[in-house]
Amino acid sequence: MKKIIIPKNIVTANSENSILYNSAIVVEDGIIKRIISTDDVSLLRNEYEIHNYENYTLIPGFIQTHIHLCQTLFRGLADDLELLDWLQKKIFPFENAHDENSLRISTQLGINELLKGGTTTILDMGTLHHQEIIFDELIKSGMRAYAGNCMIDRNDLYPKFSESTKWNLDNTYQWAKTFHNSSDGKIKFGFAPRFVLSCSENLLIETKEMMNDFEGSLYHTHSSENKKEVETVRKITGKDNVEYFDSINILDDKTVLAHCIHLSDDEVKILNKNNSRVSHCPSSNLKLGSGIANIPKLIENKISVSIGADGAPCNNSLSIFKEMHLTALIQKPLHGPTSMDALTVFRLATIEGARALHLENEIGSIEVGKKADFVLLDLNKSDQPINVNENIYSAIVYSADKSNVKAVFVDGIQLVNDSKVKFYDEILVLENAKTELKKLIERTI
Amino acid sequence: MKKIIIPKNIVTANSENSILYNSAIVVEDGIIKRIISTDDVSLLRNEYEIHNYENYTLIPGFIQTHIHLCQTLFRGLADDLELLDWLQKKIFPFENAHDENSLRISTQLGINELLKGGTTTILDMGTLHHQEIIFDELIKSGMRAYAGNCMIDRNDLYPKFSESTKWNLDNTYQWAKTFHNSSDGKIKFGFAPRFVLSCSENLLIETKEMMNDFEGSLYHTHSSENKKEVETVRKITGKDNVEYFDSINILDDKTVLAHCIHLSDDEVKILNKNNSRVSHCPSSNLKLGSGIANIPKLIENKISVSIGADGAPCNNSLSIFKEMHLTALIQKPLHGPTSMDALTVFRLATIEGARALHLENEIGSIEVGKKADFVLLDLNKSDQPINVNENIYSAIVYSADKSNVKAVFVDGIQLVNDSKVKFYDEILVLENAKTELKKLIERTI
Repeated sequence: MKKIIIPKNIVTANSENSILYNSAIVVEDGIIKRIISTDDVSLLRNEYEIHNYENYTLIPGFIQTHIHLCQTLFRGLADDLELLDWLQKKIFPFENAHDENSLRISTQLGINELLKGGTTTILDMGTLHHQEIIFDELIKSGMRAYAGNCMIDRNDLYPKFSESTKWNLDNTYQWAKTFHNSSDGKIKFGFAPRFVLSCSENLLIETKEMMNDFEGSLYHTHSSENKKEVETVRKITGKDNVEYFDSINILDDKTVLAHCIHLSDDEVKILNKNNSRVSHCPSSNLKLGSGIANIPKLIENKISVSIGADGAPCNNSLSIFKEMHLTALIQKPLHGPTSMDALTVFRLATIEGARALHLENEIGSIEVGKKADFVLLDLNKSDQPINVNENIYSAIVYSADKSNVKAVFVDGIQLVNDSKVKFYDEILVLENAKTELKKLIERTI
Repeated sequence: MKKIIIPKNIVTANSENSILYNSAIVVEDGIIKRIISTDDVSLLRNEYEIHNYENYTLIPGFIQTHIHLCQTLFRGLADDLELLDWLQKKIFPFENAHDENSLRISTQLGINELLKGGTTTILDMGTLHHQEIIFDELIKSGMRAYAGNCMIDRNDLYPKFSESTKWNLDNTYQWAKTFHNSSDGKIKFGFAPRFVLSCSENLLIETKEMMNDFEGSLYHTHSSENKKEVETVRKITGKDNVEYFDSINILDDKTVLAHCIHLSDDEVKILNKNNSRVSHCPSSNLKLGSGIANIPKLIENKISVSIGADGAPCNNSLSIFKEMHLTALIQKPLHGPTSMDALTVFRLATIEGARALHLENEIGSIEVGKKADFVLLDLNKSDQPINVNENIYSAIVYSADKSNVKAVFVDGIQLVNDSKVKFYDEILVLENAKTELKKLIERTI
């Protein structure tokens, strides 16, 4: 398991944003042990497995902090709808119709797409039932993830898709006990009450308390995504969404809130005070007509911002490249063309993603001592910047897409080779997905 | 040259938006002669060259109505800048430094990317000098285009990049005489005064008059892209941009205006009254911080809207898939999630593009009697909608990208095979581009 990787160059995402040339990384036990000169590789040739990627750029694995693997099967089935309609008419009925087989294939589709696209770590919001299947597939895949079952104990939009508070808490506890820190520590538990409109106050609070039994776990929910949602939250609680979360003491640095589009100035202060994390999902926010989160303001207020593709039916892809492109572009008409430059956005998708998950000492950059989670990109293409070495962040954020991803390693183990996930037969996955989707749709009728 | 193409299905973009199964298209002399049942193919097998694409979806070739081929070489060299800075500091100096070799390679890079991405027809805004090179490459490529030299007879932003009014008019006339209706009629002339800030009133008016000598030519310019530009136009002319164009009688149904972001209600009426065309360039508009054009309002006012990627340094790709995705997504927070649905956007990129160029009886849809310009897409992929047949527009607009394009035909001639442009050695193009860019940058210092 001792490897040397020789790329063309290394985009480190370290604190100096160093770009290294003539450098190779030495991987042992899943860790970046050293970064050496390529001149020194020959001395080590006998002891190490050499991976020669001399035309490719090595970057940290991308980190996406808001994903719904369980929804990947539903891509294209819920277009051109507003959030609450989208949930009521499509997503809740579909998620509720999942059996173990359909959930397994949906998870496989998602993992396959994420890994092929260079994403090595995710924070996943699971689903109400059969969560063990998602964990099973994540463990088998070798990718790194925070994940947890999605908790729902009230559901006015689609009452069938709900369980009692006790059911939610008991099952969550069992899943957390079984899966937190599994897969050599690559899998951790992210407690995931869905959002205010589908969770009793009791559930929200008791879930936060449960985290005390699971050190290193996270709290993952949606907030302030849609104007109608915000209004309804205000009607129920008398408060704005983030303000409400603060009032019941569920905000701290272990809380990741997806979306945060409609925030008052006070709520921005609350997020800053609690050091809570925001996961920005630009394509989902646009496609559901939710709005554009004020990311420059959040960053200015020193709030942790990272990026997630959300679920495949609301974007309609899990590509970090599409999300980075949008993260940069959509702010510019509002905040000027110099806002959200390519380097800033690249960091949100790497080291800032790690920081959101409290993994900044383990992943998110290419540095000695960190886990060997990295991606090899072929940027030497006619549709990339021609002098790509001088414009590497521009290439990654503004021009690249999944087709530039050639190889992906997690914990020093190669999961993607020549743009293919090594452990999936993609044709078989697709065929199974067709079969399971057909059955699932029949179950919803 | 007699061919039968057998796809999995055909997305026609005809007036009924028919999707055909078990159908094949019969191509003779570059024309779609018949659409037949696949059952009847065996009877014709001896007379025709059979192209079997039974796993792929056949769609009309995409049409982009605002492109700057001459800028492709500059991708990634002008990021995170506002329009007028972008022109003054980067694009005008670079365009001015073009020699024949650098312009040729820039054009090849652009054509290669466009064709590989399924675009078969463009309206290109050329550059001030050496325009014959762009025409030469377009003709060699076999793609369909309106093109014309970019006219500039004043330039406060970068005075060096300008020629006299007479020089502009004389040279334009010669180029139009040489190239209008060349390449078996595939190439037509698009007169292209750049924008108000770089054209004298005389130039704008005399160019319009020159069109009388070239039946079937177009008038192609920028308008109302950037707030500072609009203010400066107002200072110079006392009028808003479109209002000014109307006052000097250059607006009619042969005029294509790129951008049209900042329009007054009166200007929308003027565009409608003159039946002028708007080319929407969403990624460029976002990246330069220019704004979001009110496309739903233009469509509601029965104004022709089509799509263009603009130049590679302001987007940073020439992919119609990125432009379609953005065309759909960016309107939804403003106009609701049901606005700009996938079908509407697909039509903007096909038949509405044809209508913008007055080619709607020749291209833009798959119908008997039209030119055989079409694209084969592989949508049977694990990162596309699983039941793709029921969600084909969603697949094309929301999930697909250039990697789904497998084959491209123009006038019945195959230009792209297995995702590669048949007549370019892409590695050589890239190497030449590196050499020429280096020399060009040295010329700007």
